[in-house]
Parts: sequence; structure tokens; C-alpha cells
Amino acid sequence: MEQHASDTSAHQPLTLLGLGAMGTALARAWLAARHPLTVWNRSQHRAAPLAAEGATVAGTAAEAVAASRLVVVCLLDDESVRQTLADTDLTGRDVVNLSTGTPGQARALARWVEDRGARFLDGGIMAVPPMIGVPDSGGYILYSGSTDAFEAYRHTLAVPAGTRYVGADPGFAALHDVALLSAMTGMFSGIAHAFALIRREEIAPKEFAPLLAEWLAAMAGSAHLTAAQLESGDHTTGVASNLAMMVTANATLLRTAEEQGVSTELLTPYTGLMADVRPAGQGAESHPGGVDLLLR
Amino acid sequence: MEQHASDTSAHQPLTLLGLGAMGTALARAWLAARHPLTVWNRSQHRAAPLAAEGATVAGTAAEAVAASRLVVVCLLDDESVRQTLADTDLTGRDVVNLSTGTPGQARALARWVEDRGARFLDGGIMAVPPMIGVPDSGGYILYSGSTDAFEAYRHTLAVPAGTRYVGADPGFAALHDVALLSAMTGMFSGIAHAFALIRREEIAPKEFAPLLAEWLAAMAGSAHLTAAQLESGDHTTGVASNLAMMVTANATLLRTAEEQGVSTELLTPYTGLMADVRPAGQGAESHPGGVDLLLR
Ligand SMILES: NC(=O)c1ccc[n+]([C@@H]2O[C@H](COP(=O)([O-])OP(=O)(O)OC[C@H]3O[C@@H](n4cnc5c(N)ncnc54)[C@H](OP(=O)(O)O)[C@@H]3O)[C@@H](O)[C@H]2O)c1
Ligand SMILES: NC(=O)c1ccc[n+]([C@@H]2O[C@H](COP(=O)([O-])OP(=O)(O)OC[C@H]3O[C@@H](n4cnc5c(N)ncnc54)[C@H](OP(=O)(O)O)[C@@H]3O)[C@@H](O)[C@H]2O)c1
Repeated sequence: MEQHASDTSAHQPLTLLGLGAMGTALARAWLAARHPLTVWNRSQHRAAPLAAEGATVAGTAAEAVAASRLVVVCLLDDESVRQTLADTDLTGRDVVNLSTGTPGQARALARWVEDRGARFLDGGIMAVPPMIGVPDSGGYILYSGSTDAFEAYRHTLAVPAGTRYVGADPGFAALHDVALLSAMTGMFSGIAHAFALIRREEIAPKEFAPLLAEWLAAMAGSAHLTAAQLESGDHTTGVASNLAMMVTANATLLRTAEEQGVSTELLTPYTGLMADVRPAGQGAESHPGGVDLLLR
Repeated sequence: MEQHASDTSAHQPLTLLGLGAMGTALARAWLAARHPLTVWNRSQHRAAPLAAEGATVAGTAAEAVAASRLVVVCLLDDESVRQTLADTDLTGRDVVNLSTGTPGQARALARWVEDRGARFLDGGIMAVPPMIGVPDSGGYILYSGSTDAFEAYRHTLAVPAGTRYVGADPGFAALHDVALLSAMTGMFSGIAHAFALIRREEIAPKEFAPLLAEWLAAMAGSAHLTAAQLESGDHTTGVASNLAMMVTANATLLRTAEEQGVSTELLTPYTGLMADVRPAGQGAESHPGGVDLLLR
């Protein structure tokens, strides 16, 4: 294969709208991989350093969209995406939205973009800017929406971070993204409570942190058990007995918080939920991990 | 060194009070390692299988305590420990309590045991029974209290699971134990919320679980960042900007819960706490991870 021809075909040209912290990191990753890149940002000054690194700077979002078939959008939120795309001609484009939003926003945006003659992919970035363009950083981007568009650009999309395609439903990337972030929020609340418990004692946070990080990493595997029980509907193995023990243990957790002068506000919603879970055999239903009790 | 003499000196005799699920697992680990073992349990039938495996069964707790200098207690809770030890002579004994309790209960029990002429160690078991006696299971036991007693028995105590001595304060093992379990409770609440979000969608729990387990394991390392900021008092690096982003992201998490018909009850205590955290530079104080806002 002739080197020059290969280079040209491998380096998909693309347009990027949005040069915030994340957009700038994405731009640098594609430039470093020698993709012809057109950029646009509302505040133009953010484009200057990238121009010096080889990017073509467009004066308007419409010009930027006109420059490439593949248009990646990384703006603050759903509203800024709507505003920015409103004055562009999307006919024949492939739009990849990496701005964070809800699954409902992604589905509505997909319809809106498709009505304007473009294919649509939504993405959820599971990484921070310093991880972008770094091989094996552990970060990745969830994608959902047009399977054809994902297949067409899989190599280009893999440049900033690993890719995980989670389905044709354009809301699925956002749903997975938000589910992961929500679970992380729960873990962060647990971490805050744990540090509060030792805050007034002669225990150095840096001595305790390795135990805590190791313990949580080991216990993260319990997601597999919850999944198995949700799928099988068999809640008698494992979780049922664990639940009884957890309700008892929860009393010790709450009492310790009181002893240590720590608010129980982060613990009580879940301990209350657990107390409402009827052990298998004692009631009509049981609910692994309380999951179904959360459904409205 | 003569093999037989070495065996005898290495195999510390001990007494174990309590043969529930955990006590039975502990007993089997010491028997398998050929420690002379005396056992007692309130309901005597639980001792029979262990007698067949080589344990000496005592008729009363007092007889069991009289049989060995090292007395390990693994009962339901603090109250059952008090009741069981009440009629025993603890003079010259070394008592190791592996029953779960609060730090305050451990400190009071230490005084009570020491007043009766014994040394005291408290332990927090970070393992489930199937992990006991299994090398490299990942489980371990936290110890605190008499340093001399811990040193004297470190090899014997290491038989059922790895040991981690966390200080002379007899309440520290329980405090570490409860802090780890509390953080895990937060993570479990996050896991429950995440599965609830996908519950009504065409996403198989078993497809989602690996992403979730991997993500939480990776993010568990944030405990190190919280510790560094609590120690340095420098909340401007890292967390401050993350906090601003988290408060914004939290709105998307809450909105998604509403879209998916999932209660926000597990999320709101922490998102509310984060909203109360003043970003560095905008207020007099800042609170990494909200930790200090939890102190009463
Ligand atoms: N940073 C991260 O760690 C991270 C991680 C995962 C996902 N994300 C997501 O990535 C997206 C971008 O994040 P970021 O960190 O780059 O944010 P950022 O640094 O705050 O940048 C926001 C970008 O949105 C633009 N913008 C805001 N409102 C606009 C409007 N009405 N019209 C046009 N442009 C507008 C800004 O333009 P100006 O320069 O003109 O203000 C800027 O380019 C967000 O959805 C975020 O949730 C970020
Ligand atoms: N199982 C685990 O996964 C696990 C993990 C970490 C820590 N732990 C801790 O280990 C301890 C024992 O747990 P386990 O799983 O063995 O519990 P278990 O199976 O419920 O056994 C409880 C034990 O306590 C005895 N007991 C209860 N009340 C008593 C009383 N008033 N007087 C005398 N004995 C009494 C029971 O005797 P009878 O047989 O006569 O009822 C039995 O031996 C608990 O503190 C638990 O929190 C357990």
C-alpha cells in the first residue's frame, strides 16, 4: 500500500464545535493524530492556540459545519447545542454529540438532527481532560445511536479515548453515563461519611485512605451479584441473608455516627430502604438491593 | 530445630466462644492449622461437627475460658459478649473480641475486661465466612487495643485471615470497620440507584454490571484525593473545580432520575450537601467532599 494514499484515507477530516476544557483536549488528540480539523468556539480567543497547532479556525458555527461531513459537538449542555446548531445546515452531515445531557435530551436531539437530514450519535465521556489522547488512561467514551455512523467513524472516534457502543437507542449512552455517575455519587457520599467518622480522632486521613480505596474497589464487584439477582428473580441466594445481616449492621453504623458526632443524613435514606426490603419467604415480594423499591 | 518441639511451640492453644457462621469458619481455620482449640456455643448442637474435627467442647463459657489463656469471642453483638463473659474468670486471660460493635462499645468493653485482670484486643472482620482460612482471599481482620497482646499472638491471629493492627485505642478497629462499612453502604446505594435507572429499559443488568463494577473500582481511588485535601487544608487544587462541575452534573443526575421514574431519595442528601459546599475563593471556608459539613 502506498504510504501517502493510506495516510490520506486514514485521517478522516472533522469539525469540532466547542473548545472548553474537554473540547480543547479532544482537538489536541485529533491534531496529534494528524486528522484535518476545523474548530469553532463561541469565544474566539480559545481557538488561537489550536490554530498554531494546525487547526483551521471557522468564523461561525455554520462555516465549521460546512467544512466537514463529520461534526463533533462538545458544548456545555443540551441548550447550548440546540442554540449552536440552530443556524447551521446539517444536510448530509454526521453529528456526534459529546455534551452531557439526559437520555431524554439525547433522544429529542437525535430526532431534531435527523429531521434536518443528518445521522446522529450521542456520546458520554467517562474521562477527564488530562486522560484524553492518553493510551491506557482508563478513560473511555460511551456511544449510542446510528450504528452505521459509529461503524463509519470507529477509528476516528477511538483517537481521543477508547469507545464503547451501547446500542442504537440514542439515549443509551447518556443513560449509561448518568447511571455510572449516579453510582459514583453514592460512593462519594460514603467516602465523605467515612472520613467524617474519623475526623476528630487521631487517625491520619492518608493512613485511612488506602484501606478505604482498597475496600471499595474490592466491594465494587457486588454489582455483579445485584445484576444476577435482578435477572434471575432469585433473591433467596446470597442477598436475602446478607440483607438481614445488613439491617442489623446498619444499626451499628447509625449508632457509631451518633457516637462520633456525625450527621446520619447520608446513611438514613439507604438504611431506611433496606429496612423496607422484605426478606425472601417473609413477604410476597423481595427486592434485590432495594432496586425495585426506587421505581415510581 | 527438632520438628516436634517446633510444632508444639508454634501451635498456640486457644478458646473460641461463639459458633455462628463466622465462629464456625474461624474454628475450622484454627483446627486446620492444628491449633489446640476449645469451643463453646450457647446452643450446644453447633459444637458437634467441630468436636468430630478435633475441637474440645466445653460445657460452659466459664470452663471454656479456664481452658486457654487466649480467648477469642465471636458472638452476635456487645450485649451477648457481656452476658457470656459475666460468669467467667478472666484473670490472666487475653481476650480478643471479634464481635461487631461501635467504637464506644469496644472502649467500654476494654475497660470492663481489663478491670477483671485481662488484656484486651478488639477486632473488625473485613470478610465473609467463606473467605476465612483461604489464603489471598482479600479478606482481613482489623485489630486495635493491647499492643503486647497483638504481638504475642500475631501468628495465631493471622491463621484465619490477614491482620491489620490500627492502634492501641481499643475503639479504633471498630471505628475503621464501621467507616469502611459506611462507605460501602454509600456505594451500595449508588449501585441500587444505577440499576433502578436502567430497570425499565432494554439493557440487561448483566451487560451493565461489568461497566459499573469497573467504573466504581477505578473511582474508589478518589479517597486518596479527599485525604490529601483534608490533611493539607488546600481545597483549591482539584476538588474545588470538580465541585463546581459536580453541582452542575448533579442537576443532570436528578433530571434523569425523574425522566426514568426513579426516586431521587438516595441522591438528594449528597447533592444537597454538595450545593452547600462553597467553592474556594467564594466563601470563607470550603469543605473537601463535604466532610466537615457532616460534623455536629
Ligand atoms: N471536563 C470534564 O472533566 C468533562 C468530563 C466528562 C464530560 N464533560 C462534558 O463535556 C462538555 C464540555 O465540558 P467542558 O469541560 O469543556 O466545559 P467548559 O470548559 O465549561 O466549556 C464549555 C463550552 O461550552 C461553550 N458554551 C457554553 N454555553 C454556550 C452557548 N450557549 N453557545 C455556545 N457555546 C456555549 C463554551 O463556550 P465559551 O468558551 O464561549 O464559554 C465552552 O466552549 C460538557 O457537557 C461536560 O459535561 C466534561
Ligand atoms: N457472617 C459475616 O459475614 C460476618 C462478617 C463480619 C463480621 N461478622 C460478625 O461476627 C459476629 C458473629 O457473626 P455470625 O455471622 O457468626 O453470626 P450468627 O451466625 O448469627 O451467630 C451468632 C452467634 O452469637 C451467639 N449468640 C447470640 N446471642 C447470644 C447470647 N445472648 N448469648 C450467647 N451467645 C449468643 C449465637 O449463639 P446461638 O447459636 O446459641 O444462637 C451464635 O453463636 C457478629 O458480630 C458479626 O457482625 C460476621
